[in-house]
Formats: sequence, structure tokens, C-alpha cells
Amino acid sequence: MNDQSYASLHIPKSAKPRIVIVGGGFAGIQLAKGLRNKKFQVVMIDRHNYHTFQPLLYQVATAGLEPDSIAGPLRKLFKSHKDFYFRMATVNRILSEENKIETSIGNLSYDYLVLANGSKTNFFGNDENFDKAFPLKQVPQALDLRSHLLQNFEKATMASQKDERQSLMNFVIVGGGPTGVEVAGALGELKMHVLPNDYNELDFEKMGIFLVEGQSNLLSGMSESASKKAYEFLKRFNVTVKLGTLVKAYDGKFVKLDDGMVIPSQTLIWAAGVTGNIIDGISESCLEGGRILVDSFNKVKSYDNIYAIGDLALMKTEVYQKGLPMLAPVAVQQGKILAKNLVKLQNGDSPQPFEYLDKGSMATIGRNKAVVDLPNIRFSGLFAWFVWMFIHLISIIGFRNKLVVFSNWLWNYFTYDRGTRLIIRPFVRMNKKQKSAKPEEIISN
Amino acid sequence: MNDQSYASLHIPKSAKPRIVIVGGGFAGIQLAKGLRNKKFQVVMIDRHNYHTFQPLLYQVATAGLEPDSIAGPLRKLFKSHKDFYFRMATVNRILSEENKIETSIGNLSYDYLVLANGSKTNFFGNDENFDKAFPLKQVPQALDLRSHLLQNFEKATMASQKDERQSLMNFVIVGGGPTGVEVAGALGELKMHVLPNDYNELDFEKMGIFLVEGQSNLLSGMSESASKKAYEFLKRFNVTVKLGTLVKAYDGKFVKLDDGMVIPSQTLIWAAGVTGNIIDGISESCLEGGRILVDSFNKVKSYDNIYAIGDLALMKTEVYQKGLPMLAPVAVQQGKILAKNLVKLQNGDSPQPFEYLDKGSMATIGRNKAVVDLPNIRFSGLFAWFVWMFIHLISIIGFRNKLVVFSNWLWNYFTYDRGTRLIIRPFVRMNKKQKSAKPEEIISN
Repeated sequence: MNDQSYASLHIPKSAKPRIVIVGGGFAGIQLAKGLRNKKFQVVMIDRHNYHTFQPLLYQVATAGLEPDSIAGPLRKLFKSHKDFYFRMATVNRILSEENKIETSIGNLSYDYLVLANGSKTNFFGNDENFDKAFPLKQVPQALDLRSHLLQNFEKATMASQKDERQSLMNFVIVGGGPTGVEVAGALGELKMHVLPNDYNELDFEKMGIFLVEGQSNLLSGMSESASKKAYEFLKRFNVTVKLGTLVKAYDGKFVKLDDGMVIPSQTLIWAAGVTGNIIDGISESCLEGGRILVDSFNKVKSYDNIYAIGDLALMKTEVYQKGLPMLAPVAVQQGKILAKNLVKLQNGDSPQPFEYLDKGSMATIGRNKAVVDLPNIRFSGLFAWFVWMFIHLISIIGFRNKLVVFSNWLWNYFTYDRGTRLIIRPFVRMNKKQKSAKPEEIISN
Repeated sequence: MNDQSYASLHIPKSAKPRIVIVGGGFAGIQLAKGLRNKKFQVVMIDRHNYHTFQPLLYQVATAGLEPDSIAGPLRKLFKSHKDFYFRMATVNRILSEENKIETSIGNLSYDYLVLANGSKTNFFGNDENFDKAFPLKQVPQALDLRSHLLQNFEKATMASQKDERQSLMNFVIVGGGPTGVEVAGALGELKMHVLPNDYNELDFEKMGIFLVEGQSNLLSGMSESASKKAYEFLKRFNVTVKLGTLVKAYDGKFVKLDDGMVIPSQTLIWAAGVTGNIIDGISESCLEGGRILVDSFNKVKSYDNIYAIGDLALMKTEVYQKGLPMLAPVAVQQGKILAKNLVKLQNGDSPQPFEYLDKGSMATIGRNKAVVDLPNIRFSGLFAWFVWMFIHLISIIGFRNKLVVFSNWLWNYFTYDRGTRLIIRPFVRMNKKQKSAKPEEIISN
């Protein structure tokens, strides 16, 4: 799309002020929904043509679900919205003085700009030490990981060297937050129930699952009892949990830990943290810890008409002095309030400051096992697992997706099978340049 | 997998004779099923870890189905078979004098070799003129095409030049056999019912669907009435059908026809024909028209222990003097009979010559429309469409896949929606070298 013929996004001029929303994640979607047929023209820009329900991305990576069940076409969501435009592109730069953005497909002016483009994998500044790790933030990454996992077992059936086979059957996960714990649990299930059927030539006792966490407990955002239970559940799957340990480097063959341990493994899954997707052009003074500082109305400091919501926004409150957590519920709530506030501003009313309503948090660790922290009650085990499933099902966008996820879960549960263990993306590791391919390269041919 | 450590396929020696089956398509699967726990060791080699139900591949390409519904993991199919081994690899050469094959992962000896590796896209020797066409033989190709189609509409919303937009919205299909007709019908449905909801900025009256066929009628393998009906159905979708016309060249922008017409189009879908996947090492004298000549026992001429079944095999009979058609039912029947015959040979009994039982043929052209030729009766329309669906559903391998396909069809039918219109494989056209990537490159990293 570098073509001259795409030098403009072809959004018609409107009498109404134009709100440009960057990103169709939880925050962006709620904002756009709240702005439906209000006194604004709304333009949403996303690099994908679909919304990703990230909490279940790990199930795509572990062959439990196909992408169509957790991804929803963005255009479909907003098809009844008037004066709404979707564009598949990336935003390269913000020209705040001109109230314009530069995108991969041309420039666009805005009256209000809302940055809702979330977070990206954070290698803590050591990108080069971890360029062979598998991140897990986007659907294509999840599919790459799935193909890679399954290919490892295909190769393991043929490995003539013991050490080679072991390295193919060792899986190291960095990060003991919900994603890391859930990936470890899903791999544990594959090991116990699914893969031995397929690869009866292999000894699955030898499949190694390692979860490495820098802090002294798992699920550090949750209660102590949740973190202990998660540890216990993972132990039952024979996951080796290494707490208070950092991963120093990975060359594609060996994972080096800061306690001197070296794990031979052809798979390092990175679930260790994220940082804001900062777009060039935002003043350095508004950034902190890789996120954009916002006030209690989600307005970016020192700009009049630029807002940030969701993971990208750093909003400090009395309770959360280091900023609100990077969680889906924060994003959803901020998107909803900002929609109301923009309408209020337009009507000359005063906006309402954001207040985070913590509804609790949860994580699942394989079949029948989950931990749930609600504001007043904490529980774990089978009932927690049902609650986890129920909350995720009702949160998935679209009736079809709820149905597909639910029926896949039923199938997987009762058959101990995974229908989607297909090596479909021939996984060829891209070189650095390709890896950071921008959508204009991706969607041109 | 070029690694020295994979110089062998690690198949244990067995006291029983070893049958190596190349390919897990319709023919290979039936053969392996028939050999279950008989007096043979069976090794199946395929470049994918799944069987592809090719008759529905076009629905993956047109956003109707996800791959998991038409692909079945091969290891799962044969998990109860004793002395059965699956290996994901390609076969590079047959060393018939040594009873060995060379594969991408090492050499393997055989007692019987059965070539069931089907067919590949045939550009009629003009590969260079058509390297920008989209073939439709494998799941990854179908996903590439799906991403490409949807990206075209994303681009079209932004095209500033009328001719550019039109070229994005023109789709040319080469080949008026069942695949070509079904793709054209599916695109017609997308045009009428699905895409206008997503892209209300575009005028779908202008979406052009062209079906180009060299012969003077569509579905030339079927009855005249079926071919006329198919033509009529396609007309209702405003498909431009060009009969008796050949495609001469395609540069990615313009399709040149032999009647002088030039169609501006960024999509040429190749459904025009296939040729056998010939592996090096088979004597030239056994080849005819890109297929391997076999006798009525599917034995390859001039070899004692090499067989070919399915699309790859050219078996001439009294009725089919040019050889049996390259159709799934032929492959299925040949696989079944060969299994019986190999067992008979092993027991010292005489084998039974193959006789093709023609059960009829059919094609669908969008919702409620299909043509069916049975041996004694021909019909079309709604009832034919139900028959088409029923036959395909019962033919898909595996209960889960039947269920997933059926529920997707129900959903698509009643909602006029397509749940899977996701641009998931960033479609970057590979250069020639990558395009012909062999599995050893693909499964290594």
C-alpha cells in the first residue's frame, strides 16, 4: 500500500467533528459503540480487520480453538453505525500541531484523537537476546506457536540424539502472570491427555514444561491464596515452576537463567510482560514506563484533543499510585466512559472522571482447575473453573463466537481431544526485518 | 530438517514386510485403513500432518469455513493401528533398484511402495506466465486466497483511481470444472449477501466475477443438462462466463485472454486443471500425460512392487480409454481394493482387478443451487443442493469435522453471514524460491 494511489484514506468530509480511534481492542470497541450515531464522525484504524479476544489467544496457540472463534470482524461490529469508517492500516506518527496522523495508507486529520492501540511484547530492552522467543499477543503469533509446537513433536519422533529429542520436548514459558500460568496449564493438558495418543512413539514422561517468573510468587496481581493454588495446580501437571528467577538469554537452543541453570529447549514462550504501543509524535514528557500519562478523563497531559485508553494509558489514582493495571476490564470501562464524556463535552456538559470498578481477576490451569479472586470472596477448583468459563464466554464478542468457543470446549472436555492440531502455517522463522513488517508491506503484494 | 540428526526416519525394523504409502489423501487413507493390523508394517509419509478434504477447500478460500473443519490430523486417524508410522516429510526420489526412497528427512527402504501423492496445479507448461495466479490445492493456499480477497476490498475502499478500484474488485477464475464453478458461485454469494454489509462504501454492482473455460461448456465431465443448469445459475449471480476461451497470460494486474480481451484484475484463481505429482526415479516409460500408467491392479508398469493409486495413477479401461477421471471416488475405491489385494498377495491368493463404480458427480453453485448427475437420474436446484450437502457431510472424515461443517453451514445459511472473514495470514507474495519451499525448509527453523 505504499502505492501513490493510496495516499489518502478516502474518508468523506463531514459537518460533524471527526474522532479518530487508533485500535480495535477492548477499549476502542467500547468507545466506538458508545459513539454510535452521535454527533461525531468516527474513524477506526487497526492493523487487523478483526478484534482479537486476547484472553483466549493461548488456546489458539495450544490447539484448543481456531482463530475464527476468538476473532470478530471489526466491520461487522459497526455495520449499523452511521458516519463510521474502518481502515486497515498502521499509524506511523502523530502530527499534533496540525491535528493530523500519518498512516501507512496516507494522512488523516482529526478533531479528537483517541489512542487505544494497546500494548506489545516487552523484552525489557533485551530484544536481541530474545528474538527467537515466541510472543503471544496476536492471532498470527498464536498460529505460529501452534505450528511450531506440533512440528517439534513430529521432529522428536525422528531425532536420533537423545539431547536433541529432549530439547524438542522441553517448553519454557517466561512470566508467571495469567497468560504464563494458562499456557503452562494448557501444555500440561496436552502432555497428559492429548499428545500421547498422537505420538505413541514418544515418552511423554519426558516432556518438560518450565515456568520461569522473576517475582517470588505466581499471579502477583492476585491474592496469595490464588497464587499458592495456581502453584499447586501446576505441580500436578509436573510443571517445573521457577520463582524469583530471570531469563537472561535465549539462542533458539538453550535458555539461560540467572541462577546459572541452562535448559535445552527449542521453544521459549514469552508471557513476561507488555509495554505500551507508543506512536511517534507524542511528547516525551507525557510518557512514563512505556505508557502515556493521562488525567482522570483519559486526556493525555499537555494536549487538548488527544486521549489514551486501555493498556496504553497510564492513569494514576489514589488506590493505584503506580497506575491502573493493564487489564481488559480497565480498557472496557475507560472506553465506555470516554464515549459518554466526549458526547458531554460536545453538548457543553462537564465530563465525569473515570473510576475503576475492580470486578476481580481469575486464571485457569487446565481442566477443572481455576483460581478466582472476587472483591469479597476467593475460591479455586472446579467451581472457579466454571466461573472462569462463564465469564469468558459472556465476554466474547458476538453470538457466533460464543457458540463456537462453547462447543469447542465441550468437545475438548469430553473427548480429551483437540480438533485443531494442524500444522497449517509452515513456520519459517522470519528474519528481523520481516518480523517487524508493517501492514503496508503486509497488505500489498 | 536438513540437520544431520535427521538422516533417518527412525522406523524400527519389523519382521513383517514394510509398505510405504506416499500421501495421506483419499487414496492413501483408504489403503492404510484397509491394512489395519494386517501382516504388514505400514509407513505413511505426507508433507502435511493432516488429511485435506479437498472438495470443500474452496469454502475455506471464500471465508465459509475454517481449516479445522475440513482437515483431519492424520496421526489421529491411525492411532489404533499397530506397527503403523506416520512421518511428515516429502519424498524426493525413488531408488527402485535398491527398494529405497530418499525423503527430506532421510532414506527408507520398502518392500512395497504405494504412490498416492495425488496431483498438483497444472499451468499447462506455462508456469512463468501464471506465477501470480492463486492455486487452490492445499489449505495454506486457500488461506492465502481468503486473506487476499478480503484485503482487496479493504484496499478498494481507499483506492483513489476508478480503474484501480475496479481491478481490485474483479475476480477471474480459470477453469469451468466443479472447483471453478463452485468458487464462482461462492464469490457470487459473497457479492450478493455478505460483503455489502461490511463495505457499504463500495458499490457491489461493480464487483466482477469472470469464469473462463477453454471448452465449449461448463462441467464437461457431467451431463449436458447439468452444464446448462450450472451456466444458468451462474448467470443469476451475474458471473460472466466465457466458454471456449483460454487465458494466455497474467502479470498480476491484467488477465489476457486468447480472444484479445484484457480483464484488469488483481486476482486470478487457478482451477483449470491438475497433473500428477511425479517423483523422480520412476522410469519415463511409465509416464503418460503427467500421470503414472498402472495396470488393473494399480501396479506400475515394469515394477514388481511399486503401485500408484488415486489422481496420480493413469488406469485405462474399456469405458475410460483415456484413463479413469481424477476424482475422489476413484481414489477411495482404488485405495480400498489395493489394501485387499496386498493382503491377498501376501496370503498367496490372486488379486482382484479394479473396477470403477461410478456413483455420479455433482457441483454446487451458491445457496439452494446445485446440479447432480446420478447414474440413472439427473436433477438440479434445491433438492440437488441438499443431496450435495448430505453427500459431502457424510464423506468428511471424522465426527467432529462433520459437526463443525454442518453447524457452519447452518449459521451461514440462516444469517447470510460468514464467520471467518479474517485476514489472518498476512498475505505477502513469496518469491519463486520460497514458493517452492520444500518441507525440509518449512519444518526447520
